[in-house]
Amino acid sequence: MKDVQSQPDHRNIDIKKVGIKGIKYPVNVLDRANQVQATVASVNMYVHLPHEFKGTHMSRFVEVLNEYCGNLNLKAFFEMLEAVKTTLHARSANLEISFPYFISKKAPVSGVASLMEYTCEYRGEINGDEHKLLVCVKVPVCTLCPCSKEISSQGAHNQRGRVSVTLFFKEFFWIEEIIEIVESSASSDVYALLKREDEKYITEHAYNRPMFVEDVVREVTEKLSKDARFTWFSVEAENFESIHNHSAYAYTEVASRP
Amino acid sequence: MKDVQSQPDHRNIDIKKVGIKGIKYPVNVLDRANQVQATVASVNMYVHLPHEFKGTHMSRFVEVLNEYCGNLNLKAFFEMLEAVKTTLHARSANLEISFPYFISKKAPVSGVASLMEYTCEYRGEINGDEHKLLVCVKVPVCTLCPCSKEISSQGAHNQRGRVSVTLFFKEFFWIEEIIEIVESSASSDVYALLKREDEKYITEHAYNRPMFVEDVVREVTEKLSKDARFTWFSVEAENFESIHNHSAYAYTEVASRP
Amino acid sequence: MKDVQSQPDHRNIDIKKVGIKGIKYPVNVLDRANQVQATVASVNMYVHLPHEFKGTHMSRFVEVLNEYCGNLNLKAFFEMLEAVKTTLHARSANLEISFPYFISKKAPVSGVASLMEYTCEYRGEINGDEHKLLVCVKVPVCTLCPCSKEISSQGAHNQRGRVSVTLFFKEFFWIEEIIEIVESSASSDVYALLKREDEKYITEHAYNRPMFVEDVVREVTEKLSKDARFTWFSVEAENFESIHNHSAYAYTEVASRP
Amino acid sequence: MKDVQSQPDHRNIDIKKVGIKGIKYPVNVLDRANQVQATVASVNMYVHLPHEFKGTHMSRFVEVLNEYCGNLNLKAFFEMLEAVKTTLHARSANLEISFPYFISKKAPVSGVASLMEYTCEYRGEINGDEHKLLVCVKVPVCTLCPCSKEISSQGAHNQRGRVSVTLFFKEFFWIEEIIEIVESSASSDVYALLKREDEKYITEHAYNRPMFVEDVVREVTEKLSKDARFTWFSVEAENFESIHNHSAYAYTEVASRP
Repeated sequence: MKDVQSQPDHRNIDIKKVGIKGIKYPVNVLDRANQVQATVASVNMYVHLPHEFKGTHMSRFVEVLNEYCGNLNLKAFFEMLEAVKTTLHARSANLEISFPYFISKKAPVSGVASLMEYTCEYRGEINGDEHKLLVCVKVPVCTLCPCSKEISSQGAHNQRGRVSVTLFFKEFFWIEEIIEIVESSASSDVYALLKREDEKYITEHAYNRPMFVEDVVREVTEKLSKDARFTWFSVEAENFESIHNHSAYAYTEVASRP
Repeated sequence: MKDVQSQPDHRNIDIKKVGIKGIKYPVNVLDRANQVQATVASVNMYVHLPHEFKGTHMSRFVEVLNEYCGNLNLKAFFEMLEAVKTTLHARSANLEISFPYFISKKAPVSGVASLMEYTCEYRGEINGDEHKLLVCVKVPVCTLCPCSKEISSQGAHNQRGRVSVTLFFKEFFWIEEIIEIVESSASSDVYALLKREDEKYITEHAYNRPMFVEDVVREVTEKLSKDARFTWFSVEAENFESIHNHSAYAYTEVASRP
Repeated sequence: MKDVQSQPDHRNIDIKKVGIKGIKYPVNVLDRANQVQATVASVNMYVHLPHEFKGTHMSRFVEVLNEYCGNLNLKAFFEMLEAVKTTLHARSANLEISFPYFISKKAPVSGVASLMEYTCEYRGEINGDEHKLLVCVKVPVCTLCPCSKEISSQGAHNQRGRVSVTLFFKEFFWIEEIIEIVESSASSDVYALLKREDEKYITEHAYNRPMFVEDVVREVTEKLSKDARFTWFSVEAENFESIHNHSAYAYTEVASRP
Repeated sequence: MKDVQSQPDHRNIDIKKVGIKGIKYPVNVLDRANQVQATVASVNMYVHLPHEFKGTHMSRFVEVLNEYCGNLNLKAFFEMLEAVKTTLHARSANLEISFPYFISKKAPVSGVASLMEYTCEYRGEINGDEHKLLVCVKVPVCTLCPCSKEISSQGAHNQRGRVSVTLFFKEFFWIEEIIEIVESSASSDVYALLKREDEKYITEHAYNRPMFVEDVVREVTEKLSKDARFTWFSVEAENFESIHNHSAYAYTEVASRP
């Protein structure tokens, strides 16, 4: 059977990324508390295609995914990225996986446990000898508006927000560490299960920690800046405003320090 | 050219609904304040297919849509539904359109105006001589938790919510009337544009009107029950909880009264 | 601390469903090939609320979910539904869970295996002594247009489609059985991983089995009608048309037979 | 009333972008055929916030939007970006709007007209005296697989795809020009309304123009490279594969030329 993809192409145009996008696959990821966690990932896999070839071989991406989905810690993710590049005979390769990640969390007063859902992403690129690895964590939080509190005789509007942290790093860290930093930088963290005493605690706690999206971004930035493991990071906070039908949003990034 | 769709089918199976789904089209709808409003609709159009025919003629749906999109008030919607049935020689026809609808709204204290977005849906069915027409309106609101207020020394968690009202009716009404009923039945309505004096007003107003999803559903139900134009309706309230990563939800419906 | 939810309500309005919506939770479900499969579900849990009480107790839903998420086969789903009703002291309860479900599938010629993703939903209601249990399975397929094939000198447009089957049943069945019925009723099934010889096979196979959405719905209906385990079912087919930017759609349902 | 946002902040952290996200607003945009087109946009508006201030003034963004939504051609978009920067007293400002855009299109043989939906985005940044303006257009197309055609005795799998082109430019161009370039670079363009003779034409036309995502990206790149108005562009093609449940994807970009 003819290998159409390997035929020559004469348009003289390299393609930076070609591959498969949005494939859902069950994966096992590293879990600080339980060693391993089974979840479902959405995966993108791309390689560079030199100008002389007509197409890439899409089925090989899934073969690589098949091989690595059973154990996708950061180290294995990196090996998988290498495997994509090697298997496809490519100059560069990109790999992106995104998955819900669950942590058992105790309510602040009652101590009842439930599972909180966070979203994690790994995004890797290998280009010749160079490689980059980004980790992104999305954390739901509660924010209470400082302006609303200040100007109102009682109460203050508050809402669910989502904080996204994206990091380059030079040393290992746990996703759980980033989550702790974010949750300690909002008006309150959020939970799947709260008893009445917890709801009282969270309401009062949030009222005493009013924060704009700007404040959340700055708090997280301040904490991450002190951690030498992270060579670059961005912090994004989005409030699903309770008094508007749109979001308040803040973003900053801190470039690599020596 | 052979008309494959009109060929006979021998499996002896009627199809209740066949047609096109999810086509986006610019439409003009009726606007209480400005007579007409230009918006973009997502449209589904179906007919019954008798067991003896292999397929329906999909292109005719879009021809009917072309004809009616310039003026889609409720009366024209009904004529369009008739036109679908007639053009497709069908026993029954279904038509569903959903669109963002904007109303100019003044902030409660400053009076500054901005446009609030609501979602409207018309869903019609014509079956022989019978016809049904449902209108659905989705209204964003703010809700403040009565329990949180009661048990906490200060503050109360609140959040954006969305209330959906679906109605059968025997007399004309304005979408704006339903929106007013819903907005007066939550802790506060929400706005695109608020100045500081408005934010103070809304914060205090919501704090003085704590409401569960249950309360919102009951308030709206009580008001709609008094209006003889509505022969059946459902009310659904969903809170995008500020202390959880999931929603609180309530739904009820009131069956036709004489 | 005051129990606000248990306070009396004087509006005299029952609420048909109140509870939590859209909570994501890791669950284990029954798997024909491997006994158990770890996946991530989106869960809705509701109860009836009598007119005399102000609110329901949202935290109890998550407590029930915590207890059952480790083993959610159909029997346990039913027990969980009972537990919701009992724990909330309710007259009726509703439980809906939706999750991606993976099956290892061999390519038709090369035999290489990969994991295909399907979507499953269980929807249960218990009302006094009555209970209902619906299972819904969504299956991606490939459909090739009979009209396009017939009228064209070469080729035929084809596209990805999705078939949704929803069933009431009186005897146990495997999700895998429904998937097999659907996949044998389209122009071709789809795969995560195909080698060139498989692609040739599928292309030719689909070309020899042209099917409208109407045909897919009828094929599935015909097969399910012969299975006495299913007392009611609906079949829905949607084609993400390759020559349009909208879908072709067909739906039918078959009512309970003796 | 205290202006909390204007209070000093001592954390010494600049915020690159702060503002409102995801507000839906009706806008009028420039239309080559009809001068003006009414549509509904999703809008993001951000400014830089210097480290010495606690927060930005969110309401001013909506005031600017109110002023410009009636006429949002590219020139007005640029003025609006300036107005955001000036009104918020900011060093830099970002403005992003995304909207469905409709073009009346004639079927290739019958000549019947219908409205095709495309997605357009403008993304602008003004930073001191520098400004950048990106336009992005998303075009649905049909692609037919060259490998499938080559290896199969009959037929070839094809599917809906979406091509996204993003451009920096130094001279005015029409969105319609980009759409024409993309539509002439796929196996076939797609339509809202086709009669049987059109379906025959498109089926045969696509069969005679088999194209991988790689080919589509290269065709569009080749054409855009010859147009001196575009100083940088990227081209992205995604196929919603008819034989898989995931996408095939290709991306490239061409950097500024003298």
